[in-house]
Amino acid sequence: MAIITLLTDFGQRDSYVAEMKGVMLSALPGATIVDITHDVPRGNIFAAQYVLGRTWRRFPTRTVHVVVVDPTVGTQRRAIAVQHDDHHFVAPDNGLLTPVLGSARVVELPIPAAAAPTFHGRDVFGPAAAQLASGASIETVGREIRNPVRTPPPVTRRDGKDVIGCVIYVDRFGTLVTNVADSGGQGEQASGPANSGWVGGTVVVAGRVAPVRRTFADVPSGELVAFLGSGGTVEIAVRDGSAAEMLGVKEGAEVRVRDY
Amino acid sequence: MAIITLLTDFGQRDSYVAEMKGVMLSALPGATIVDITHDVPRGNIFAAQYVLGRTWRRFPTRTVHVVVVDPTVGTQRRAIAVQHDDHHFVAPDNGLLTPVLGSARVVELPIPAAAAPTFHGRDVFGPAAAQLASGASIETVGREIRNPVRTPPPVTRRDGKDVIGCVIYVDRFGTLVTNVADSGGQGEQASGPANSGWVGGTVVVAGRVAPVRRTFADVPSGELVAFLGSGGTVEIAVRDGSAAEMLGVKEGAEVRVRDY
Amino acid sequence: MAIITLLTDFGQRDSYVAEMKGVMLSALPGATIVDITHDVPRGNIFAAQYVLGRTWRRFPTRTVHVVVVDPTVGTQRRAIAVQHDDHHFVAPDNGLLTPVLGSARVVELPIPAAAAPTFHGRDVFGPAAAQLASGASIETVGREIRNPVRTPPPVTRRDGKDVIGCVIYVDRFGTLVTNVADSGGQGEQASGPANSGWVGGTVVVAGRVAPVRRTFADVPSGELVAFLGSGGTVEIAVRDGSAAEMLGVKEGAEVRVRDY
Repeated sequence: MAIITLLTDFGQRDSYVAEMKGVMLSALPGATIVDITHDVPRGNIFAAQYVLGRTWRRFPTRTVHVVVVDPTVGTQRRAIAVQHDDHHFVAPDNGLLTPVLGSARVVELPIPAAAAPTFHGRDVFGPAAAQLASGASIETVGREIRNPVRTPPPVTRRDGKDVIGCVIYVDRFGTLVTNVADSGGQGEQASGPANSGWVGGTVVVAGRVAPVRRTFADVPSGELVAFLGSGGTVEIAVRDGSAAEMLGVKEGAEVRVRDY
Repeated sequence: MAIITLLTDFGQRDSYVAEMKGVMLSALPGATIVDITHDVPRGNIFAAQYVLGRTWRRFPTRTVHVVVVDPTVGTQRRAIAVQHDDHHFVAPDNGLLTPVLGSARVVELPIPAAAAPTFHGRDVFGPAAAQLASGASIETVGREIRNPVRTPPPVTRRDGKDVIGCVIYVDRFGTLVTNVADSGGQGEQASGPANSGWVGGTVVVAGRVAPVRRTFADVPSGELVAFLGSGGTVEIAVRDGSAAEMLGVKEGAEVRVRDY
Repeated sequence: MAIITLLTDFGQRDSYVAEMKGVMLSALPGATIVDITHDVPRGNIFAAQYVLGRTWRRFPTRTVHVVVVDPTVGTQRRAIAVQHDDHHFVAPDNGLLTPVLGSARVVELPIPAAAAPTFHGRDVFGPAAAQLASGASIETVGREIRNPVRTPPPVTRRDGKDVIGCVIYVDRFGTLVTNVADSGGQGEQASGPANSGWVGGTVVVAGRVAPVRRTFADVPSGELVAFLGSGGTVEIAVRDGSAAEMLGVKEGAEVRVRDY
């Protein structure tokens, strides 16, 4: 059962995603193709990294993940494929795959002469993904390189007992996702546990203080609340509302998380 | 051929739906997963009921339908699975499944300790759906309960020969879907027949009168029209326009349907 | 491996697309159903033609393509199925399939008495597509006709060495897609090649002049640029921006393409 996932900023109203699917199904008619999302904010590498980081491990090993947020398509930027923890990844070499580059094997994909300079998703990444999903080994789809572009997401720092981080993602509910992991040390890949070490503490963001609870339904409707989110990091929400709107903040805003 | 459908208010721009799919495909790699919609208005139980009611019978028996509109996730609200007419349903116990609770068998799903309090879709409902789609019987996924929460949709009443109902759903074209069935007595599950008993009658809504015709193309562009909709109840539309906009009405608005 | 694609203006927030999928999976449980898009601008036949024209050849032969943009559903307009180049197409007979009607075999589909007058997608086109995808020959799903409706898209003309065309599609990035093919004569079905004969020339649109380059990343951010797009015709874009917004133009706007 070959599975290929797609994560792009192409949207779903044009033909682009379907053209990729047609190419992949022509090469591998039995493939299961899953849309992660096609609504990454245009050109936003960090948002794509965050969504990819939450998602890829949920899929079976041998899944091929295609990630195309590609503002410099058609220039000298390389195309790469990565093998990591028995998953494959295919993307432009612009930092998108930083979260899975630890000890991964990386190859540079050839760009066919006939590839449209504006649509490597269809003409480069789709075909490579279908090859990998068909069982091709990573060495057969390109030549190994050792210097893929890395664009690490922002890190947190300690300030006494507090942790200073930032908003790294805003979801469609207006919930602010931060890069601050659980105080018990659980990382971003963990499922949110039923109880976080932060519960009972507070989060300061945009001059407002949000209590940390287990879930948003632990506060009355309309109130600000923080909790350990399902991606394993602290999130700030408004129950039945939008924290992004209430606070007027977006990606990059500083947050201070403390256990008191 | 295991089929699982998904109906949520999660939207499609974040990772949530894909995380559910990854979990289900990891448990059951050959599953066919179909998105009903992920754009139910946030927290709107009645809208989800309406969409579910139109959709589930169109799928083959043994399909598993996952419905997650879950404003009290992580609280004491239960998680349930339902067997009805050889289909399975998995949802929070908040009334969502009222339309299929007639003589159904209902079990309460256990909440794993590690489940994220804000994302039972991934950690509770997805895994249960994969089990059921794999062929597990409903008794093996939870213990039977007899008092699931019921949230019946609004009913119609007679006023002489008229039927008084209300708008229960507004679709993306601005068409107003009511809860008034065909005058011949056909219920909400029937295909709209080629001719409705209401044809030739009128619908009064927001002080305006719409003639009942077979289809919206039976009136000139821009005009108000009513017809027996494809879900089996009376709908009010504007040809090439939006009845919701023209009339300024939404869910809950009263409608009067009469055969003259 | 039966593949069915869907191209409609139904949107994805209601139940309509899922009802079609349920009907098709009930008839053919192993079918692979691919959404091309459901966000064709409402009733826009030319936009649907353009998206279909870019997409269908990317899929394997024997794929069945269902196209439903159907402003006169339920009237006397016919329903048709078409066989062309070993693909099948199913649609209302309103010109949608003009691009594939060259030497195609065309049959008229019967409309069942119980079909909802407002939803032939579910009650006429879906079932016919499932039959064709199951291996039925086109003669078995309807009776042959020789006069399907044709709605040809606008054509280009020469003005000396210039080519005068128009904008035929605006994508979600605000990129203006024209009907002007590559100067080397490559048609709309070709992949955009790495170098177009137009490179080095200019495009005049809305009183502005855009240089033709290989790709949008060949100009600085915020600047207007033209290139041979991935659909095989000239496109006008703004790097990291929207040409439709900057120029205030939409479908139908005249463009002049010249090689100087």
